[in-house]
Amino acid sequence: MLTISEIANLVKGTVEGPSDLIINGLSKIEEGVKGSLSFLHRSDYEPFIYTTQSSALLVSNEFIPQQPVNVVFIRVANPYLAFNSLLEIFYPPSKHKIGIEKQSHIAEGVEVGVEVYIGAFAYISEGCKIGKGSKIYPNAFLGKDVIVGENTVICPNVVVYQNGIIGNQCIIHSGCIIGSDGFGYTQNAEHQSVKIPQVGNVIIEDFVELGSNVCIDRATLGSTRIGRGVKLDNMVHIAHNVRLGENTLVAAQSGISGSTDIGKNCMIGGQVGVVGHIELADFTQIGAQSGVSKSVTEKGTVLRGAPAQPLREQLKIEAMQRQLPDILQRLNNIEAKLKEILKK
Amino acid sequence: MLTISEIANLVKGTVEGPSDLIINGLSKIEEGVKGSLSFLHRSDYEPFIYTTQSSALLVSNEFIPQQPVNVVFIRVANPYLAFNSLLEIFYPPSKHKIGIEKQSHIAEGVEVGVEVYIGAFAYISEGCKIGKGSKIYPNAFLGKDVIVGENTVICPNVVVYQNGIIGNQCIIHSGCIIGSDGFGYTQNAEHQSVKIPQVGNVIIEDFVELGSNVCIDRATLGSTRIGRGVKLDNMVHIAHNVRLGENTLVAAQSGISGSTDIGKNCMIGGQVGVVGHIELADFTQIGAQSGVSKSVTEKGTVLRGAPAQPLREQLKIEAMQRQLPDILQRLNNIEAKLKEILKK
Amino acid sequence: MLTISEIANLVKGTVEGPSDLIINGLSKIEEGVKGSLSFLHRSDYEPFIYTTQSSALLVSNEFIPQQPVNVVFIRVANPYLAFNSLLEIFYPPSKHKIGIEKQSHIAEGVEVGVEVYIGAFAYISEGCKIGKGSKIYPNAFLGKDVIVGENTVICPNVVVYQNGIIGNQCIIHSGCIIGSDGFGYTQNAEHQSVKIPQVGNVIIEDFVELGSNVCIDRATLGSTRIGRGVKLDNMVHIAHNVRLGENTLVAAQSGISGSTDIGKNCMIGGQVGVVGHIELADFTQIGAQSGVSKSVTEKGTVLRGAPAQPLREQLKIEAMQRQLPDILQRLNNIEAKLKEILKK
Repeated sequence: MLTISEIANLVKGTVEGPSDLIINGLSKIEEGVKGSLSFLHRSDYEPFIYTTQSSALLVSNEFIPQQPVNVVFIRVANPYLAFNSLLEIFYPPSKHKIGIEKQSHIAEGVEVGVEVYIGAFAYISEGCKIGKGSKIYPNAFLGKDVIVGENTVICPNVVVYQNGIIGNQCIIHSGCIIGSDGFGYTQNAEHQSVKIPQVGNVIIEDFVELGSNVCIDRATLGSTRIGRGVKLDNMVHIAHNVRLGENTLVAAQSGISGSTDIGKNCMIGGQVGVVGHIELADFTQIGAQSGVSKSVTEKGTVLRGAPAQPLREQLKIEAMQRQLPDILQRLNNIEAKLKEILKK
Repeated sequence: MLTISEIANLVKGTVEGPSDLIINGLSKIEEGVKGSLSFLHRSDYEPFIYTTQSSALLVSNEFIPQQPVNVVFIRVANPYLAFNSLLEIFYPPSKHKIGIEKQSHIAEGVEVGVEVYIGAFAYISEGCKIGKGSKIYPNAFLGKDVIVGENTVICPNVVVYQNGIIGNQCIIHSGCIIGSDGFGYTQNAEHQSVKIPQVGNVIIEDFVELGSNVCIDRATLGSTRIGRGVKLDNMVHIAHNVRLGENTLVAAQSGISGSTDIGKNCMIGGQVGVVGHIELADFTQIGAQSGVSKSVTEKGTVLRGAPAQPLREQLKIEAMQRQLPDILQRLNNIEAKLKEILKK
Repeated sequence: MLTISEIANLVKGTVEGPSDLIINGLSKIEEGVKGSLSFLHRSDYEPFIYTTQSSALLVSNEFIPQQPVNVVFIRVANPYLAFNSLLEIFYPPSKHKIGIEKQSHIAEGVEVGVEVYIGAFAYISEGCKIGKGSKIYPNAFLGKDVIVGENTVICPNVVVYQNGIIGNQCIIHSGCIIGSDGFGYTQNAEHQSVKIPQVGNVIIEDFVELGSNVCIDRATLGSTRIGRGVKLDNMVHIAHNVRLGENTLVAAQSGISGSTDIGKNCMIGGQVGVVGHIELADFTQIGAQSGVSKSVTEKGTVLRGAPAQPLREQLKIEAMQRQLPDILQRLNNIEAKLKEILKK
């Protein structure tokens, strides 16, 4: 519980209205209740500020209400960032456990750092190393010789196959499968698929977060590599020998095919497919549901569509598609007129 | 084993042919064997009735065969529903277990109702409550303070993160991840992603069924909410703060982005993507593989395509696309004729 | 460690350069180091042969370098196959464990063959049979009456529901869910979904490999059937009553809807959707991200697009779409000219 003026101090804001009201929680603007603080970030949520039951509202320094409001304003440069900074104060993250639960399985010789948690039914194979402060939740499986860095969280039911390497400060959400075999076969004369041995591994650098049920395949040879600070949303598929550059973001249900090399700071929307053996330059942005089939060489290119085009071209094409019935009508008219002209 | 006349009684049908034959199982029409009962529901399966080995066939009251048949008809109003009602009679569901298996982990103070099953290697954290008659299968994980209602089935290897609430009479299939963190970051000046704390939860109301490997993210703040009677197919992705209204159905591999509010009784096809922060009216229907980027305000709207259009428009556009080569040809002809005219 | 001439003997190749150099590992051409052997398979990787640090290179008999090279050539008919055959020699697969770990749960009466491995926290229900040499990894769950053939590997955290049958020599990667209920409901008068009992099972024939987090639903009645030699990539969805013919390949994140019957030796790209109740002929090929809504009757048909068209048609349509802005311009020109003509 904090007063409005205490909150204003924390976020370096200025108060418009009574500053001694008590705030005891945060809420979205459309779910505000007495005693809660909300924020206005997107202009399409503005109508809610005239009806919200929240006691206080973070708004931008420039915001001018179009109607009278019944809520205290705290004006800040960026209401979204200010609100996020308050989340951790009002809802401090629950402490992770420390210690090794009895029903876990830890092979002989595994190296375990201080302040580590290993939950019941977690299975740690021979040769593993788990760094200081890392947490291995129940029902997780670490294969032979897996290395987990420091202060990394492996959530329940994660599987890391043999030789996987996971850095420091990572969060691997439940159901992720790291290091299963890539989809690699050759066809024999009878059209049967002969498995190509997948003998590489997966390397996940520091500060990576993987959403639920993400699949990252081991390299055929060498390493599939997830760069520092990469964030993948739920159910992303990363094929063998892919590389994702630092800080790249991939939204849910997208898939990157084998041996593709994606640059730093790229942003890839949801349900995107990227073919194998291409390269995307740093800062490439791909719209949702796109299909990318060619390398992108220019930094900061924005693509959309399937097959993906530069955004401008794609928007033109999409607009044209909606005009197709009109185009056909015009074509009919022209042909009719021509016929008349030629009759004369 | 039932006679045809006993079955006819159960489904309130009328028999055409010998009614004392014994039926000892059910089968699809194309897989019929002597002694089995099948049904004809879709007209494209009609050819099978002239070749099926089944002994009896549920057909509609109106059905008129085009050739002689060698199978007893049981005529009913709706053969599909009649057949489904027989499924439970011929194949009674296997009884769930009751009791707590020794190798499970149940934290102190967990409340467990009567007739509950908790399988080996299931992990139930502090503060959980499990209602009467619910079943927690092996290798499932319930985080801190998870509440499971009555007569709900949590299949093997499901993960429910802390504070998740699951209603009564739900079925959560294997591999579902409920309540992992939403995909929420802000970018700092170095283009790194700074995690926004995800402090809300997931609420699943009564009578919900989730297919395998479904992912539902916790809300940033407040609750991601899955309405009463919702059914999700395998690998559906539900992002943070989404709401799904009562009885809505979502087919496999679709994804709903953050804060989107989907009405009651909607039907969403497979591999659909819906952007964040929009609303879909009740009874909206979305065709498979569509990409929905705008709110739908009118009840019962039917959309298809990417970007999704009203079905009628979309069908026109798709038809036109197939005509494009023809359109180009006509354009060439017109230009040739014009040239001639202008020469004169 | 082998000499170049020993390797040339193994792959039946001819050496160009010093044949007594020692090779101690394999590497991709772009990651070559001293002592490693690489291969040149795709012409777009040719530039690397002039800069690679590898000591030796498998190239085709016909290959003619365009610049001087600093690496020993081993010429063979197919460098790719030759390289794959060396992978198993340089990186012999790690031996699977044998034996039953104490913390596993094996119901009374389960039949377990010789040389089987059952890991800790694996749960084997009543009535299961596990064939000779098969491996059930930790945290896997086999429901009632599941049958696993010989020399099959069930990776960690796999779930097989009751009555599932898995053949010989299969590899089921982590997180696969085999035999959960299909997505089958009827609607009652209140628009609620009434579950159709799903009483069939899943049959997986011999030599099948399933990628991570694949979901295969049990049949409503009868069996969902995965043919001998089928390979599915990560997160493929197979609905109830689907059949996949022998040797068919399905790339990541594709989904096959209920009761569809796919022929032998088909190749289905990534993120493809196939509607229910259709048939695809043997050797059908479907491009990535396609949407297939009609049966394919001709063997060897190649389809692409959504809705999928024969490849030739689809390429034409895609080319035309890119010409749309040009088409519109031409239309404008024609209309202007016509106007002028009609003025005269």
